[in-house]
Amino acid sequence: MLKGKLLVAQGGGPTAVINQSMVGAVLESRKFLNVELVYGALNGVRGIVDENFLDLTRETTHNLEMVAQTPSSALGSTRDKPDLKYCQEIFKVLRAHGVAYFFYIGGNDSSDTVRIVSEEAQREGYPLRTIHIPKTIDNDLVLNDHTPGFPSAARFVAQAFTGANLDNWALPGVYLAVVMGRHAGFLTAASALGKKFPDDGPHLIYLPERDFDVDRFLSDVKDTYERFGRCVIAVSEGIHDSSGVPIAVKLAKVQERDAHGNVQLSGTSSLADLLTETIRTKLNIKRVRGDTLGYLQRSFIGCVSDVDQREAREAGEKAVQYAMWGENDGSVTIQRTGFYSVDYKLAPLAAVAGKTRTMPDEFIASSGTDITDAFRMYLRPLLGSRMPDAYRLRSESNSVPKILTK
Amino acid sequence: MLKGKLLVAQGGGPTAVINQSMVGAVLESRKFLNVELVYGALNGVRGIVDENFLDLTRETTHNLEMVAQTPSSALGSTRDKPDLKYCQEIFKVLRAHGVAYFFYIGGNDSSDTVRIVSEEAQREGYPLRTIHIPKTIDNDLVLNDHTPGFPSAARFVAQAFTGANLDNWALPGVYLAVVMGRHAGFLTAASALGKKFPDDGPHLIYLPERDFDVDRFLSDVKDTYERFGRCVIAVSEGIHDSSGVPIAVKLAKVQERDAHGNVQLSGTSSLADLLTETIRTKLNIKRVRGDTLGYLQRSFIGCVSDVDQREAREAGEKAVQYAMWGENDGSVTIQRTGFYSVDYKLAPLAAVAGKTRTMPDEFIASSGTDITDAFRMYLRPLLGSRMPDAYRLRSESNSVPKILTK
Repeated sequence: MLKGKLLVAQGGGPTAVINQSMVGAVLESRKFLNVELVYGALNGVRGIVDENFLDLTRETTHNLEMVAQTPSSALGSTRDKPDLKYCQEIFKVLRAHGVAYFFYIGGNDSSDTVRIVSEEAQREGYPLRTIHIPKTIDNDLVLNDHTPGFPSAARFVAQAFTGANLDNWALPGVYLAVVMGRHAGFLTAASALGKKFPDDGPHLIYLPERDFDVDRFLSDVKDTYERFGRCVIAVSEGIHDSSGVPIAVKLAKVQERDAHGNVQLSGTSSLADLLTETIRTKLNIKRVRGDTLGYLQRSFIGCVSDVDQREAREAGEKAVQYAMWGENDGSVTIQRTGFYSVDYKLAPLAAVAGKTRTMPDEFIASSGTDITDAFRMYLRPLLGSRMPDAYRLRSESNSVPKILTK
Repeated sequence: MLKGKLLVAQGGGPTAVINQSMVGAVLESRKFLNVELVYGALNGVRGIVDENFLDLTRETTHNLEMVAQTPSSALGSTRDKPDLKYCQEIFKVLRAHGVAYFFYIGGNDSSDTVRIVSEEAQREGYPLRTIHIPKTIDNDLVLNDHTPGFPSAARFVAQAFTGANLDNWALPGVYLAVVMGRHAGFLTAASALGKKFPDDGPHLIYLPERDFDVDRFLSDVKDTYERFGRCVIAVSEGIHDSSGVPIAVKLAKVQERDAHGNVQLSGTSSLADLLTETIRTKLNIKRVRGDTLGYLQRSFIGCVSDVDQREAREAGEKAVQYAMWGENDGSVTIQRTGFYSVDYKLAPLAAVAGKTRTMPDEFIASSGTDITDAFRMYLRPLLGSRMPDAYRLRSESNSVPKILTK
């Protein structure tokens, strides 16, 4: 085992359970005598380069447990994606502080960062063990059954649509909400998990795994509205036309791109507004409302899956165990072993980094606007215990005969 | 006591606890032998005119209890505001079905409906007892300490901003979210209840009780951003300029008005997008994100104040007691009697109907962009038990000395 300090950092978009992974890594690493101190880098790789470290060994276990239950990244995050020069600066700092273990909790982009750091360390002969700990609400990491952060975000989306469906039933019309997920529709598909009765919404679900056609969309909405007198729609922010051009981008006057070359889809509501306006004008329906679920999906406090908390915690613990007892750098992955149970494996960084997983066809109904029972079976155990349930008054058996109206 | 049927209906925007009031009224009324049957009208007054009734006497108590815990209006709602002719149709139906008691659960507009119905009944000599049961997330009914539905919506807003603040801390920039509340800023002000540390957001709160000036706004945001390196902003959908013109209306190309003459402020995100775009261009800040909390504020399932549930239930129960043992029609009001305890009074309908309560000056800080401790004391007990709390890593005492950086 390498002897030295252990450094943990958090990258990319925060989740409701990313602190569980951080705390899992910190507390597990305290069991190993070769780990001298446990540092946390503030704001991801940026904090390494800037030497902004917290000595987490000086934190109380009690406060760490409280932080673990708090959403968002307690160490701060970054969108920086290190190139070779950036990596060399990272090594300089790691060497100066005697860091032997580097754990980076993050999604696609962060796993690629870990891969570059790992490869550069080997090339320079710097003795460093690097482990990527998965997190992403998009659920788009390959080789994982699912990724920590997704179940809690999915729970939020399911609860949001359960309520929105009830609201839309009370005051009928068309309700549309845009859900996060750039390339993968898992989070948008989660909107269906609050459905109980056959006429419950969302009645239509639009995923980035299927091409979006405005005419088809209008026809779907019209049919649903005529059938139920109302329509609830879930739309992924990443929907695109058959040429692959995102519908959101088609409209956005200003295309803001982040350092990874990703188009900014969240934090703007143009997609919801365009789609509701299209429905209003083309279908002549008066009550059309649109929401963009926005940052609440990943940061709302008090809506978390206990299964997600547990797994995020374990992923952090396993990262330490792999680092101490294993011979390789890698990415912690979650494997489903029962209904419901999981185990963990360490995958090669290159097998995970920079790859995007999307929804398999078996999860998407042939209509292209609904999900399958296979997806329901996949997602339900992840949402955790005490999911709120919606109840109705029984209307058919208890309706009162009319006296005046014939 | 009048002998006959009891009819309950729900009007206006749904809330998380409006079904508690309905179920409270239904179950309490079953204790009175002069109440022959308990009917529920579907979709408010519209359901009365259309004779769409459910016989709630045939519901199981168990299912009623489950419905009570379900958000949104289980009987459906309406935006209809009856005029004289509409009221005459209502009487025709009530008379035909032998209804002696009419309970309408709703906000400002619904209380005015109850007033018209009550006055018309007296003018026509129709023996009818009508009671208005309060609900509104806007908290804008006069003569009430607060109104059922507001505490749960306030809890949602507080939890949303607690999370948004953590997210914004992790990935700094400007975050702005628009909160419901046409004339009253109570719900927007609730955004401050998740603040724990002096640098926590929301750093700026814009209420409809104060005139909104774009230049002043930009200067506030600039100062905050320079001080904290980030800025979280809560904005009421009802903010307006000094001439009283809503900022949202200034921008909206299409002004959709409902039957009450109210401008449609929710279900569109133009206000958030305009304000974030203004910040981005005028202050040259790159990361500016805007959300509109939208319908989740009133319909999200699984985020409810137990205090709110209890009071909504009691308001429904008290309505029955006032109707049976009292001599007057009226509106149930909530009075605060301790810290924290409430009691109920029946107020004359004319004293409540159509009037709007806004935030008193003592709840708004002199800066105009923050709330006072008086408001914090007012709101905190309403949010209920088990409010989620946010924890931080201790950074000052545990920061690691830099080695390379001087």
